[in-house]
Amino acid sequence: MKDIQAGLIGFGTIGSGVVKLLKKNHELIKQRLGFSINLRKIADLDITTDRGIDLEKGVLTNNIDEIIENPEISIVIELIGGFEPAKSIIHRAIKKKKHIITANKALLAHHGEEIFQAAENNRVDIAFEASVGGGIPIIRSLREGMVANRIESILGIMNGTTNFILSEMTNRGGNFEDVLNHAKELGFAEADPSFDLDGIDIAHKLAIIIALAYGIQVSPEDIHTEGISRITNIDIEFAKELGYKIKLLAISRDEGDKIEAKIHPTMLPLNHLLANVDGVYNAFYVRGDAVGTTLFYGKGAGMMPTASAVVGDLVELCRSISRGISLRAPTLSYQRKSIQSKEIKDFNESITNYYLRFSAVDTPGVLSKISGILGRFDISISSVIQKDRMIKGAVPIVMMTHMAKERNIQKAIKKIDNLDIVLDRTILIRVENENLEESHGDLII
Amino acid sequence: MKDIQAGLIGFGTIGSGVVKLLKKNHELIKQRLGFSINLRKIADLDITTDRGIDLEKGVLTNNIDEIIENPEISIVIELIGGFEPAKSIIHRAIKKKKHIITANKALLAHHGEEIFQAAENNRVDIAFEASVGGGIPIIRSLREGMVANRIESILGIMNGTTNFILSEMTNRGGNFEDVLNHAKELGFAEADPSFDLDGIDIAHKLAIIIALAYGIQVSPEDIHTEGISRITNIDIEFAKELGYKIKLLAISRDEGDKIEAKIHPTMLPLNHLLANVDGVYNAFYVRGDAVGTTLFYGKGAGMMPTASAVVGDLVELCRSISRGISLRAPTLSYQRKSIQSKEIKDFNESITNYYLRFSAVDTPGVLSKISGILGRFDISISSVIQKDRMIKGAVPIVMMTHMAKERNIQKAIKKIDNLDIVLDRTILIRVENENLEESHGDLII
Repeated sequence: MKDIQAGLIGFGTIGSGVVKLLKKNHELIKQRLGFSINLRKIADLDITTDRGIDLEKGVLTNNIDEIIENPEISIVIELIGGFEPAKSIIHRAIKKKKHIITANKALLAHHGEEIFQAAENNRVDIAFEASVGGGIPIIRSLREGMVANRIESILGIMNGTTNFILSEMTNRGGNFEDVLNHAKELGFAEADPSFDLDGIDIAHKLAIIIALAYGIQVSPEDIHTEGISRITNIDIEFAKELGYKIKLLAISRDEGDKIEAKIHPTMLPLNHLLANVDGVYNAFYVRGDAVGTTLFYGKGAGMMPTASAVVGDLVELCRSISRGISLRAPTLSYQRKSIQSKEIKDFNESITNYYLRFSAVDTPGVLSKISGILGRFDISISSVIQKDRMIKGAVPIVMMTHMAKERNIQKAIKKIDNLDIVLDRTILIRVENENLEESHGDLII
Repeated sequence: MKDIQAGLIGFGTIGSGVVKLLKKNHELIKQRLGFSINLRKIADLDITTDRGIDLEKGVLTNNIDEIIENPEISIVIELIGGFEPAKSIIHRAIKKKKHIITANKALLAHHGEEIFQAAENNRVDIAFEASVGGGIPIIRSLREGMVANRIESILGIMNGTTNFILSEMTNRGGNFEDVLNHAKELGFAEADPSFDLDGIDIAHKLAIIIALAYGIQVSPEDIHTEGISRITNIDIEFAKELGYKIKLLAISRDEGDKIEAKIHPTMLPLNHLLANVDGVYNAFYVRGDAVGTTLFYGKGAGMMPTASAVVGDLVELCRSISRGISLRAPTLSYQRKSIQSKEIKDFNESITNYYLRFSAVDTPGVLSKISGILGRFDISISSVIQKDRMIKGAVPIVMMTHMAKERNIQKAIKKIDNLDIVLDRTILIRVENENLEESHGDLII
């Protein structure tokens, strides 16, 4: 078998990881694949910075045409990120019948439809395992290993930065600002971290995961998305007292006619597997109707874990190319004609348990007023904690509710926050009590 | 695309699950695959028992020739288990150029070499995701998702029966016999459970996993294997006190020139991910040189989880057949010419921490005698617990050691058990302190 030629566009952190990994495990990959992968050209605007990697003369170029116009190169790895010029480059490469590997979740979440269509029209593959969950083979697992299952639900910790911050606040007790600064020092948060902190990065990933799981295309904007910047140590401590940890979760569920899709800070019972996923790790808690509950865990980002996914895709494409096939499995796991138009459920209709923390004046009758309003909106209370301790001149009253509807909770809180006896905005955190016992899978051995 | 015809041999629990799943998710699988899978024939010696499944007339037969000799059937699913007649049936089907799906770990572990060779000679695929880890896509993940990685180590909970028993003993406190009987009542243990309890089932699975991870073929007999029948509540309680849980672990590590492979009850720190894998669940804790630490978790057995893996294989084979290819990825993850002859490390050479429980008479000088012997064999002690409480007329003395060599531990225990002051056989449990922090993966986001 002839070696296969690939070109890399974007020689940043992940790109460097890919080059390092191909060099380090060259022999091993050849033993598995049967032939070598030759990284023929690397294109980047910056061709002077020393990345600590020995390259043969002529490999590094600042001219992407040397990749796209090279007829010997059959695979293009796009690792520059963002919308442009990545999108135009991918389209140009597809027209030249090159297969594409990308980690560009923003691009796929927003413009996946036109890119996948172009690829199919040109009979080339788009591989994107690295776009979600770093080194965790979650895309393959949904598209192949779990292909026989109706995916009932996915709960995911899909962003390392926010999980690191919440883990540090929980385990070491620092406040949000201090921990964020610490994360920046460690390289776990960008200089401008808003993309991560606000959940936008997760919305891109969840849009891709939903397409694979349910065969529908959704825009990240259609997913209700909240970040972690309003999480305080006060609520982390109350969560602990109640037996919960706070995680930024991406949640999706197949509800038959509609798909639930939402991203928000969530209280998880301490014994939930996801509650123990700490630091920069990611995990996907996936329930299929046959397999039951599964968990896929690993590093969701970083140079080498992401390179592991990119080179995994590279090997898969090489296997197809060497056999003369493409589009072996449908890109989004469903045949194009079966892509459905199921709607995303209105977030206001979602039903869950809630943690509510009210900041009230210390006078008799407060509890009765608050619980009276909750009652009027069909919200019943499962437990209450009230303490002597004052926070900013107010008494914190914490309530856990039974299942209630988001719309009702929002209305009730609006009314409560208008009361004279309430001194500050009420804090709301949704509670996920889904646990192993509910699994539909079969337990018989 | 024409529908693909498959034949099922073995209509027991798993076979029934496969038929149920193909019926239940027929439309979904068609939406993903692009055409239907037609289960044309089901062969079983028992064609009278009602399995609660409606079959078209003529599908069920007690004559396997109706499958093997049928030229329209391109895939044979073997779910009868055991060596014969399964082996002969698979060989006959391969000669007829039929692709094979099997969950038969015993057969693959003992006779994989000849079966894989026959399949390659006849250019057909052998798919066996269901043979290890039930519904967990661990074989695919090793062969595809993590293909770019040197696999540094695998720690696995690979048997649901033993994990259920140890979990029950740990969480509810019953003794081994009572919990085993309870497991039998629940259908989690066979009438003759020795295959599971003694670790034989795990040795088969580990042999398959080692082949995929390291490209070497090993016999299950070459893997040091201990079961759980000597685990008592006394040791479970001491483990708790020391911050550990006891799990039956399959362990393998790439040590460069040799591969470590062993199965034994193991103490894991309570915060280790595997320590929290309870009940009939399985998990694989896999470390790759690029991806770092990953965990794959799910039901390792049972009708529907195993059927999920079988039908996943079925879809994969259909994708290949419809494109006119076979043997897309090498069966054992490495090209045949690269299958290596690395040796399994002598178990006596393995080095780990140990938990030792001595049963001694209650006289002065006992501790000094025991620790003196340990010292002579280069075994140093990291902690000691001695309690007033008597067990069967003896005082239990528990020691945790620093890293020590198995050979030395065995020699020391032999000497110690010969002392007059020692009343009963010393209990030894190996301790695995490998944890997340040691991961070689890169943490930079």
